[in-house]
Parts: sequence; structure tokens; C-alpha cells
Amino acid sequence: MFDKNAFIHHVYFWLKNPGNNNDLLALIEGLKKLSSVKTIKSFHIGKPAGTSRDVIDTTYSVSWLLLFDNKEDQDSYQVDPIHLKFVDECSHLWEKVVVYDAVSV
Amino acid sequence: MFDKNAFIHHVYFWLKNPGNNNDLLALIEGLKKLSSVKTIKSFHIGKPAGTSRDVIDTTYSVSWLLLFDNKEDQDSYQVDPIHLKFVDECSHLWEKVVVYDAVSV
Repeated sequence: MFDKNAFIHHVYFWLKNPGNNNDLLALIEGLKKLSSVKTIKSFHIGKPAGTSRDVIDTTYSVSWLLLFDNKEDQDSYQVDPIHLKFVDECSHLWEKVVVYDAVSV
Repeated sequence: MFDKNAFIHHVYFWLKNPGNNNDLLALIEGLKKLSSVKTIKSFHIGKPAGTSRDVIDTTYSVSWLLLFDNKEDQDSYQVDPIHLKFVDECSHLWEKVVVYDAVSV
């Protein structure tokens, strides 16, 4: 499924108000809109899976996993107007974001 | 690509000796063997993509992204003899592991 040039962009969001369901839904709605960016090959909007071991970080609110065909498509996504609009509209919802970008070894 | 029951298991490894190429190759080799676990739907072995922004964690050595069809398959993977052998043979290589498990919202 992942070809050699695949670019994996995985973002974890921690909400400012993790107990607020409206904030959670607003972020999910924002990500759904964001998923329309043309260079995104596949996306997954996730939440903690309910697993529990000491190495598992279960504290995030939303996982946003994106697959791109290559690095150029990810670079393009970063400056896509839809992305900038998402940040503008939704960034007040989160307290912390951690991003891991990975390419094939 | 991701269906409703998809289970995303994303592991980030920090090597004990991040500058040691033999250790890096040994971990990658171990992950390649580990990828033969039958319940794994897709896998990606990655390294930091060379991107740089303050929200990006670029400090890990290896990214190990697994897709399972459902939670049961991931549970099975955790206790698969091939997985246990991998931990036995490779855990001396890493200093830190962080895992994020995600299911669809």
C-alpha cells in the first residue's frame, strides 16, 4: 500500500478543553473539510483506541493521519488555502500539536 | 483506504545510539521480519522526513506504522510469537518507544 516515495504526515491534537464534546466535534468537522485538499492521497481521523500499556500515549484528543504520494505534495498541502483556513478557524481549539513526518527508510 | 474499523498502530523508536548505523540497520531488519505477522494489513518503516517546524518531532530514529483491519487483529499481533521474538532480539537497541493507537472517530 505504501510505495517508496510515500510521505506520512501524522498529527496529534490535544484539545484545550478535552472534556468539551462540542470542541471535539468542531475539530473533527474542520478536519473533514481539510481532507478536501487535492494532494492528500488518503486520510484517517482517529481517537485513542482504548489500549493501555506504559509505552502508549493515550492522552491526545484527535489523530490526523495523512498519506501523500511524495514530499512535494505535502509541501503543497502546508500552504494550500484550505489548510490555512483550517488553521485560522480551528487553532483556538487545541492546546498542543505534535507532528511526526516520515519517509521510507 | 481506511475503512471504519481500521486500527492504526504507530510506533516511534528512539535508538540508544542514534548515530550508530549498524544499530539502525538492525532495527530496520528486525521490523522487516516483524512485518510477516499475518494480521498486519499494511506497514510502513520510516525515518524523519527532513521537515522542520516547531511542532514537528524530528528526534525519533524509526517510525513503524501498522494498519490492522480491526482491534482484534492488533490484539493478536501483540502476542504473536514473531512479535515477541522481535522484542526479545531488538529491544536492547532502543532507549525509548512511544506508541499511538487510533481508531476512527
